[in-house]
Amino acid sequence: MDNFTMSMPTEVLFGQEMTKNLSDMIKKYNGSRVLIVYGGGSVKKTGIYDMVTDHLKENGIFYKELAGVKPNPRISSVREGIKIIRENKLDFILAVGGGSVIDASKGMAAGSTYDGDPWDFYLRKAKLEKSPLPIGVILTLAATGSEMNGGSVVSNDETERKLPFRHPMLKPKFSILDPTFPFSLPKFHTAAGITDIMAHVFEQYFSPTDSAYLSNRLAEAIMKTCIHYAPKVMENPFDYEARANILWSGTLALNELLTYGKVTDWATHLIEHEISAIYDISHGAGLAILFPNWMKFVLDEDNVNKFIEFAKNVWDVNTKGKTELDIALESIERTREFFDFLEMPSSLTEVGIDDSRLEEMADKAIIFGDLGGFKKLGKEDVLEILKMSL
Amino acid sequence: MDNFTMSMPTEVLFGQEMTKNLSDMIKKYNGSRVLIVYGGGSVKKTGIYDMVTDHLKENGIFYKELAGVKPNPRISSVREGIKIIRENKLDFILAVGGGSVIDASKGMAAGSTYDGDPWDFYLRKAKLEKSPLPIGVILTLAATGSEMNGGSVVSNDETERKLPFRHPMLKPKFSILDPTFPFSLPKFHTAAGITDIMAHVFEQYFSPTDSAYLSNRLAEAIMKTCIHYAPKVMENPFDYEARANILWSGTLALNELLTYGKVTDWATHLIEHEISAIYDISHGAGLAILFPNWMKFVLDEDNVNKFIEFAKNVWDVNTKGKTELDIALESIERTREFFDFLEMPSSLTEVGIDDSRLEEMADKAIIFGDLGGFKKLGKEDVLEILKMSL
Repeated sequence: MDNFTMSMPTEVLFGQEMTKNLSDMIKKYNGSRVLIVYGGGSVKKTGIYDMVTDHLKENGIFYKELAGVKPNPRISSVREGIKIIRENKLDFILAVGGGSVIDASKGMAAGSTYDGDPWDFYLRKAKLEKSPLPIGVILTLAATGSEMNGGSVVSNDETERKLPFRHPMLKPKFSILDPTFPFSLPKFHTAAGITDIMAHVFEQYFSPTDSAYLSNRLAEAIMKTCIHYAPKVMENPFDYEARANILWSGTLALNELLTYGKVTDWATHLIEHEISAIYDISHGAGLAILFPNWMKFVLDEDNVNKFIEFAKNVWDVNTKGKTELDIALESIERTREFFDFLEMPSSLTEVGIDDSRLEEMADKAIIFGDLGGFKKLGKEDVLEILKMSL
Repeated sequence: MDNFTMSMPTEVLFGQEMTKNLSDMIKKYNGSRVLIVYGGGSVKKTGIYDMVTDHLKENGIFYKELAGVKPNPRISSVREGIKIIRENKLDFILAVGGGSVIDASKGMAAGSTYDGDPWDFYLRKAKLEKSPLPIGVILTLAATGSEMNGGSVVSNDETERKLPFRHPMLKPKFSILDPTFPFSLPKFHTAAGITDIMAHVFEQYFSPTDSAYLSNRLAEAIMKTCIHYAPKVMENPFDYEARANILWSGTLALNELLTYGKVTDWATHLIEHEISAIYDISHGAGLAILFPNWMKFVLDEDNVNKFIEFAKNVWDVNTKGKTELDIALESIERTREFFDFLEMPSSLTEVGIDDSRLEEMADKAIIFGDLGGFKKLGKEDVLEILKMSL
């Protein structure tokens, strides 16, 4: 078990009607002039936007807004937000939405106290030195875990790059998680969210650090919860218990808890970023296509035990009379079937991507070095996984 | 799943040699004049005391010390600590030890900014209103979880009371967890610590809130980790991986993570407090005696499913051809056997306690009302569990 430092400053308010505490929380973190950031307008349809703005008005909190943040959020939105923050001397960012909205908000938070272009942070040209603006979150979708971590992934249309940027100071001050907010999500978004959560757990579960036993068991707890509730929530989107457990799984899957004491992987996420940077597909869809292929590619004699653990503890695979390899392959098959059940795509072809730019994606994926902590992947490996995924 | 609020301000520095960050952490939380609190001197034997004080001297941090805090820490130690803090205008408390030392330190932290007697907090006569002194922890024993929560349990010899006091402001600012520090613990303390961890999980696992599925799976992850590593650490006290996983289990077992979204029990802990308030037995020993009897007493047709879950998911009980009741009883039997393996006592008689004061203990246990969230226990129920434990 490796050394680690735990710091979880984000306060979570979980449950129905927790939004009533919003203005108290903003004030607690010295906010008085707020930028509300949201996406394509679904928060208006669901009434969450009205609930939030009514609440702010009633409590005398000044706000401006930035609408239209897209999935795979663009650096152009980040720049626009920073402009509004500066023009109006805003001191707090309230992200109302899912991962894209939160990630864009983090870019704004960092960029608003920085003199240069916020894209510099993603290009690793600049380091976050000044305290960013504080962020609060009202989460509407279980998926990215961005509501409790310091990570942000943003795309640049001009350069077709999608890059991560991470800093402890970017962790939200608070996140409000109301399991009724995702009730009205389209089925596809619910399913892509569950896929994303599972993928986050995979990135941390598949690790060379066998000694982080407890972290591995915690990861299995989250995967089992997703597997248990996925059919329920696909059947009935208003199932509070299912929504609540999935929402909480999404947060715990990526708030660092599962990383403690171990090396993690993240190759698949970085490969996926190269796909969605060019083709703008849903992150969850890209992960569903790639992950089973990544598993097949990396599986070998040395790491087969990890897949057997995965098969037994997560998928309840009956191992009797089967070879180690068979058991491992069955765990991968079960993963594929789970994503199929969620009606996620299983090939790049299915989402309209051909082989014309695979080489370019593989090149870009390794721009900061080889990928992966479970198994190191160079350019040729990445290319092979992309080809397997066609 | 019930509503909840998550706030985990304590920073954890986990791993070998993490103590080198001590003075930076004290300064981060504005400490400059420190009270070091420790127990019976084992930290001197192990060299931890020298390591800490050398480090403070090298970094120019002024300190005074309070030694001799006992297991089942006394309010007299708390009062003594407050006196030293006031006389020397100290501004930070560094607890070096296990749960008793940390719990006593919390009493001092609260009492040093309060005009009355610190015992008032435990008697629920006073509320913590002023900010307590900040606390840092160097943990030497995996057990109570006090290193990351706001709870403190202190005993009063004069009145033979042992009472809990809890406040979010009492959460330590940081805790340093070095898995090598418990290497030299006597076998009994290691075993009592594991018992305490398991008992903390039981108090939260046995809950009427079935819908907190993820919290239940996380609880099982911690129990499985304790069960996996208990034989290893009893066999080899220098097993770093075992010590590390058990240490981390102890912290996660009682840092609120397992309580989220559910009603918890705590009857057994409160009954145990009445025993150790009078007889000064080890808390872990008391819990090992009581818990299997509490389980047998509360098991009924309505909650048998919880015990079946416990049997299957924690103890891997083979359920084929067995009645529900048999499976449930087998899970209790396995719990008893686990504590037996840890060489914990299984009856009050074994630790020299007879039936002469059972009635008095039952009376005191319910002084603030009936006990338990899983099953409500009145005085007669408590008395019955105590009799079963003779």
